[in-house]
Amino acid sequence: MATAPSVSYSMTVRLEVPASGTAVSQLTTAVESSGGSVTGLDVTASGHEKLRIDVTVAATSTAHADEIVEKLRGIEGVHLGKVSDRTFLMHLGGKIEMASKHPIRNRDDLSMIYTPGVARVCMAIAENPEDARRLTIKRNSVAVVTDGSAVLGLGNIGPMAALPVMEGKAALFKRFAGIDAWPICLDTQDSDAIVEIVKAIAPGFAGINLEDISAPRCFEIEARLREALDIPVFHDDQHGTAIVVLAALTNALRVVEKSIGDVRVVMSGAGAAGTAILKLLIAAGVKHAVVADIHGVVHAGRADLVDAGPATALRWIADNTNPEGITGTLKEAVRGADVFIGVSAPNVLNGEDVAAMADGAIVFALANPDPEVDPGIARQSAAVVATGRSDFPNQINNVLVFPGVFRGLLDAQSRTVNTDMMLAAAGALANVVAEDELNANYIIPSVFNAQATEAVAAAVKRAALAARKGE
Amino acid sequence: MATAPSVSYSMTVRLEVPASGTAVSQLTTAVESSGGSVTGLDVTASGHEKLRIDVTVAATSTAHADEIVEKLRGIEGVHLGKVSDRTFLMHLGGKIEMASKHPIRNRDDLSMIYTPGVARVCMAIAENPEDARRLTIKRNSVAVVTDGSAVLGLGNIGPMAALPVMEGKAALFKRFAGIDAWPICLDTQDSDAIVEIVKAIAPGFAGINLEDISAPRCFEIEARLREALDIPVFHDDQHGTAIVVLAALTNALRVVEKSIGDVRVVMSGAGAAGTAILKLLIAAGVKHAVVADIHGVVHAGRADLVDAGPATALRWIADNTNPEGITGTLKEAVRGADVFIGVSAPNVLNGEDVAAMADGAIVFALANPDPEVDPGIARQSAAVVATGRSDFPNQINNVLVFPGVFRGLLDAQSRTVNTDMMLAAAGALANVVAEDELNANYIIPSVFNAQATEAVAAAVKRAALAARKGE
Repeated sequence: MATAPSVSYSMTVRLEVPASGTAVSQLTTAVESSGGSVTGLDVTASGHEKLRIDVTVAATSTAHADEIVEKLRGIEGVHLGKVSDRTFLMHLGGKIEMASKHPIRNRDDLSMIYTPGVARVCMAIAENPEDARRLTIKRNSVAVVTDGSAVLGLGNIGPMAALPVMEGKAALFKRFAGIDAWPICLDTQDSDAIVEIVKAIAPGFAGINLEDISAPRCFEIEARLREALDIPVFHDDQHGTAIVVLAALTNALRVVEKSIGDVRVVMSGAGAAGTAILKLLIAAGVKHAVVADIHGVVHAGRADLVDAGPATALRWIADNTNPEGITGTLKEAVRGADVFIGVSAPNVLNGEDVAAMADGAIVFALANPDPEVDPGIARQSAAVVATGRSDFPNQINNVLVFPGVFRGLLDAQSRTVNTDMMLAAAGALANVVAEDELNANYIIPSVFNAQATEAVAAAVKRAALAARKGE
Repeated sequence: MATAPSVSYSMTVRLEVPASGTAVSQLTTAVESSGGSVTGLDVTASGHEKLRIDVTVAATSTAHADEIVEKLRGIEGVHLGKVSDRTFLMHLGGKIEMASKHPIRNRDDLSMIYTPGVARVCMAIAENPEDARRLTIKRNSVAVVTDGSAVLGLGNIGPMAALPVMEGKAALFKRFAGIDAWPICLDTQDSDAIVEIVKAIAPGFAGINLEDISAPRCFEIEARLREALDIPVFHDDQHGTAIVVLAALTNALRVVEKSIGDVRVVMSGAGAAGTAILKLLIAAGVKHAVVADIHGVVHAGRADLVDAGPATALRWIADNTNPEGITGTLKEAVRGADVFIGVSAPNVLNGEDVAAMADGAIVFALANPDPEVDPGIARQSAAVVATGRSDFPNQINNVLVFPGVFRGLLDAQSRTVNTDMMLAAAGALANVVAEDELNANYIIPSVFNAQATEAVAAAVKRAALAARKGE
């Protein structure tokens, strides 16, 4: 699978080029012959003898970018100036900021926003704590909490190196759902400490978004926080992923005209995302699921499970999947299956494995950046293929889910988030694809489809209000 | 001391008034005869028979505001509509928000701000943690941390009721110093827990501003955090107050032409602010200081001190003040003193006490909203009088200090904040009042004097860079 030049590896190279001669015309050729792509060419200064040109180039990797720079340097008469990495430029100084909603122009403003006026607002909340949702930022604020233990596919890089991701997440919360999120990067990976800290910081927020916390710690941390707090706690890596997968699966099943209660689902990956997907699929009606991890198919008799405690996630999987007691490898399990869902590692399946699936097979190969099976090859025999990548059809992306989920929870002033709300979110997202739009290459809306967040928010709000009535 | 109508007790009253007759002209009279003040009168709709008028009124208290509303209701033909409290309106939904610095318009933006582009930025920080100050919000972010145990003069109202103050503080950080501050309101008042939590959340911030944490817990919490963290920790109620007091005292001494090493200083209040002021004054050269608290003058032989442990703040005061071993009441101690500084309670002194001070007496009566002595009365015998109030000359206000202190610390990427930096801040703030501007009614700049923050920031940055060199 060849990787195309990407804007996420793009740079701007400043060059001084002789005004006469062929150097200018060689720039684009040099980039393209190196496999790069010129996305901009701006003359920023010009004289009789020389031009200053900023060439913006997309590459496929950092090494590739270096290679292109060397090629440009090699052109006769070209003098190489500053090379700016466009992605790094966007992150310089951080990507988010705090803004005041009111100008503070004079003493009157100051005395209402701060002392002495603020004292009356404080006393109103002290007398009626519910007023905090009316008179403070609590109503619209979400803490994006990480310990940096499982950041993207990068692993345990720690809280400070995780900060760029959390800022990005906060920016997405605002862009897609108008939510004020602030990153909280924790300098501890002790589960007890994390639970205590998040409990303690909760008063200023209306929701907690856990992010990039490694399994199995994330399960316990989330469960204990949900028990302790009166605001919703949502681990996006688990439930955001589960909701978008269920939405996509719902529509994929419509395309192949199969029913969720009948299909055989085989999953690869039993981590945070895998476990959450599995639980939500079962709640949505999946009856025949088999999960494989790095040791093969999970079944109650497997050596590492016989010894596992009753409360582990893997034990739960063994108890709730694989009713026929299948053993063996992923490749064996996938034979004849209707649905494959991978949240694991690159290239665990090949074209023959997909061809051995049932007719009308559905393949979600979500490992990033390299899927469980090449989507182009999978598509040769599968009826529907989806990945996590933006350069193939059917991108399964959490951005479709978490902003709307939190918007709905916040609007309902929900104290919890439960399976009903997640099922409602998945159903609403699936329905954003209209009957006459639905086909094998369009089972899920694009991330910039404004209806997605709106539909998810409305469905979650409805379900959350129903849950509050039932309290 | 009569209180004037204040914008912090202002409301907008919607009225329907007959178009003919005298009702309209009675509105202002009704407000003013009740002791209120009309600050706006807007006709928002008009017809042949009726006018809709929004009257904005400043009152002196909530009860007074209610009284005015009743008076308006009593005017013949007037129909009372909605009454809006202007201060509450400003706080509705919170006063601050999170903003993204970059638009997210398309997939290219998304892939640079978030995955996959962000991964390279994360890895850069994982390899070189110092890069977090370049590539993330850390460089300009401050956590405003409280446990709600000593909020303004309101006492222990808890973390949620403290949130309006913390939001206001964050808004001031931005307005005066361009700093991104976010409130962290802690649902615990256990010192150990607070220390652990603040340590844990530190990676995402370049400074910690402790706020409204009660004494003596605030001393221990601050000291332990300073020891543990590699970013500056500053308890504004202590040090912000100390710096602005020292700046004001420096200029007051210029006015009365006395030297800081010679004056006898008597302080009322041995809490967080009092202790910090005392320590900074001693560092600045004060040699004769006496402190009184609710039990009278602090001296080593006082009953409650004989039993006090060696590490208490009161013990420190006893050991470092009152070289002559004075005993007795505040009123006795203040006789013949050059300087009185009150950070305690209303009306602990009267005019006779002030008259009994030395010639060229300086009185800082900072209890809020009601000072230790009526400033109008104090001014009859004292040479210089300052208060915490905005309706008298010489307002001693932390807003002059904390934004600049943090701006300087952040710009220097300082790991600490120490006494040298605080002395530098006080000196710089004092010098904002030029020699030809200085007089008994202008010893400290106004809070909206743009030079104040700039001067403080520059001085602190210089001192912090000097400290880093010495590391």
